[in-house]
Amino acid sequence: MKLGPGIAKTPLPKGFYAGGVNSGVRKYRPDVGLIVSDLDMTAAGVFTQNEAKAAPVLWSQCLVPSNKIRAIITNSGQANAATGELGKKNNYEMVKATASVVGCAPEEVLVASTGMIGVHLNVELINKCLPELFDRVTDNAEHFANAILTTDLVPKTISTNLKLSTGEICITGIAKGSGMIHPNMATMLGYILTDAKLEAHEAHTYLKTAVDKSFNMVSVDGDTSTNDCAFLLANGATGVEIKTLEDKILFQNTVTELSQLLAQAIARDGEGATKLIEVNLHGGTDLQLARKAARGLVVSPLFKCAIHGEDPNWGRILARLGAEGIPSAELDKMTLKLQGEEIFTDGAPISFDRDKVRGLLRTDTVLVEIIFPNENRVEMVKAWGCDFSKKYVDINAEYN
Amino acid sequence: MKLGPGIAKTPLPKGFYAGGVNSGVRKYRPDVGLIVSDLDMTAAGVFTQNEAKAAPVLWSQCLVPSNKIRAIITNSGQANAATGELGKKNNYEMVKATASVVGCAPEEVLVASTGMIGVHLNVELINKCLPELFDRVTDNAEHFANAILTTDLVPKTISTNLKLSTGEICITGIAKGSGMIHPNMATMLGYILTDAKLEAHEAHTYLKTAVDKSFNMVSVDGDTSTNDCAFLLANGATGVEIKTLEDKILFQNTVTELSQLLAQAIARDGEGATKLIEVNLHGGTDLQLARKAARGLVVSPLFKCAIHGEDPNWGRILARLGAEGIPSAELDKMTLKLQGEEIFTDGAPISFDRDKVRGLLRTDTVLVEIIFPNENRVEMVKAWGCDFSKKYVDINAEYN
Repeated sequence: MKLGPGIAKTPLPKGFYAGGVNSGVRKYRPDVGLIVSDLDMTAAGVFTQNEAKAAPVLWSQCLVPSNKIRAIITNSGQANAATGELGKKNNYEMVKATASVVGCAPEEVLVASTGMIGVHLNVELINKCLPELFDRVTDNAEHFANAILTTDLVPKTISTNLKLSTGEICITGIAKGSGMIHPNMATMLGYILTDAKLEAHEAHTYLKTAVDKSFNMVSVDGDTSTNDCAFLLANGATGVEIKTLEDKILFQNTVTELSQLLAQAIARDGEGATKLIEVNLHGGTDLQLARKAARGLVVSPLFKCAIHGEDPNWGRILARLGAEGIPSAELDKMTLKLQGEEIFTDGAPISFDRDKVRGLLRTDTVLVEIIFPNENRVEMVKAWGCDFSKKYVDINAEYN
Repeated sequence: MKLGPGIAKTPLPKGFYAGGVNSGVRKYRPDVGLIVSDLDMTAAGVFTQNEAKAAPVLWSQCLVPSNKIRAIITNSGQANAATGELGKKNNYEMVKATASVVGCAPEEVLVASTGMIGVHLNVELINKCLPELFDRVTDNAEHFANAILTTDLVPKTISTNLKLSTGEICITGIAKGSGMIHPNMATMLGYILTDAKLEAHEAHTYLKTAVDKSFNMVSVDGDTSTNDCAFLLANGATGVEIKTLEDKILFQNTVTELSQLLAQAIARDGEGATKLIEVNLHGGTDLQLARKAARGLVVSPLFKCAIHGEDPNWGRILARLGAEGIPSAELDKMTLKLQGEEIFTDGAPISFDRDKVRGLLRTDTVLVEIIFPNENRVEMVKAWGCDFSKKYVDINAEYN
């Protein structure tokens, strides 16, 4: 299972079709995307915990989990957040028009939107392009993955086939996200499609478990969006059910790994990013705290700047872990490694070759290992982020 | 009461003396400062809540509140944090040497340190300069205020005389801080000196109340330091006691205002800052949540970049308030003003003159007003921060 830029023709699972066109809302790139299925889809979704939820989030979270979803429509450029009653009305107009083109009921259409907050949806332009969009859907993710991007530089797609005891299935993931990335419960936009046959409550469990270890462990800038959504859509087109415990675990692990690769892709494509940062925290005794601390670290501007400058300024790592609430007794036993090189152990600095570590940091992925020698330890926690460059400021001081 | 750069000769209260010299730890600037008093001082302190507390914090928090403090020694350049047992020993060596020079017991000497984390204190160099430092103390804040700076561009001092019913007193505040600024309970380094006569428990109450509304409401980068300390030192040199309720309130309000002005000065001098941001949140119904939301906003990189670019991208403000947990029902009634201009009201965008607001943002202090029309409202909450510029990245990608 490999993920990277340029794999635009990522195949979709059996019975799925997707496309993207330009509606005219954005000048130079596709801005409306559609995923449809021949068969009814089982759908699960997790959504932003931001109290300021966008109109599409309020709509979609009422529909899932469901055994009867037919399409998901997504527009980029206008987030339809902070748009009041008119925002909800516009969202519903887009849903109705999509349902009419696809040939289903409005409550069988999920929505996700991304873009500028506080701008009313240009529903007239969007609805006008829907027939053409539906005509142009294909069996690969290319046009859809492009249509949902905002400040992203690369589309993010991944696909894998999985052999279960009951037959072979396909799982495909698509995501977008580059700024305002600090998901809580869900993320930017993430879509996981499969042609396996799932019950709605199972789909929710698989999705929630994967999201907690992937999208919820990535941060670009610590700002939680109003529009985060992740969906798992299963259309059962292969007829393959997931029955045995072994198959369930295999399916779960694959969905989790695929989500983690998409989460990494989001961090690597973070606004202004030049490096992906991966934090591995071993030996924590409290899972929630370990997750909070690992993600807190990838939010720290000081740490992110140090990594940008390839500076082994490890004191900032310790300071952030302490600020996140890792008890001092734990910090006193901690070992810290940068790119595998031991930097700090047993609560005091150790002598290390600063220039050597600087050299090790001259890489496009930086690994930070935090190790607590506890006996009653929880599972290892991973978090992803990116470095902080001047380009982030450029992008966000003149977004409009 | 005015505060600004260039008022270096800020007077100290009666009976206080302060100075700063270069010990050789830092190359080009004074790096050790001392405050002493003729008379025993009543001392209160509040300290970082970071679990990774520096050796000087662990020392000083054992001593306060106290009725018998004689000196406070401060070094800049080496934070003496994450330095283990040797760090504690070095701290004590510096305390003993200071006590010997001043002529008091070690437990009458408070310490604060600031600088690089994870570097052992060069206690030999520091102790060697102490006799000269003690010889050179004066009755103004100039040399001390300079000696405690790190990445700060300007010293931060303020002084005022206060007429109470029992007599006239002086209060002087000195602070430092520019990066790793997101205090929790205390801040970077803050010193409030007065020649009034205070009981230790009173001093603690006055200090804690002021800090919660000032240093605890400022953020430069969301990173909480290992070394934050704020002290209130009263030597009673005027013999003036604070007895009536009116005098107590006047004294509290003055200490709070003085602390707020120092907090603003820290935000204005934030690493790379070009603008001071003040957030006024009116009409909240939960004080803790209102404080969390106001300070959360000044931490948001997206919001800070927008202010840097003089871009009225108010959607980011709403998104952050929602992410901090302001309930959607409140956000739906909210009014938002930028520089006094109404931008958003009743949960939906209103039309405003974008270019006019851009023009209003072309100022060195930006006021953001958030107004909830609630009847059972808590007091207005203020928070301060600064914009996010490319210079912050420059400073922190090459701190060493």
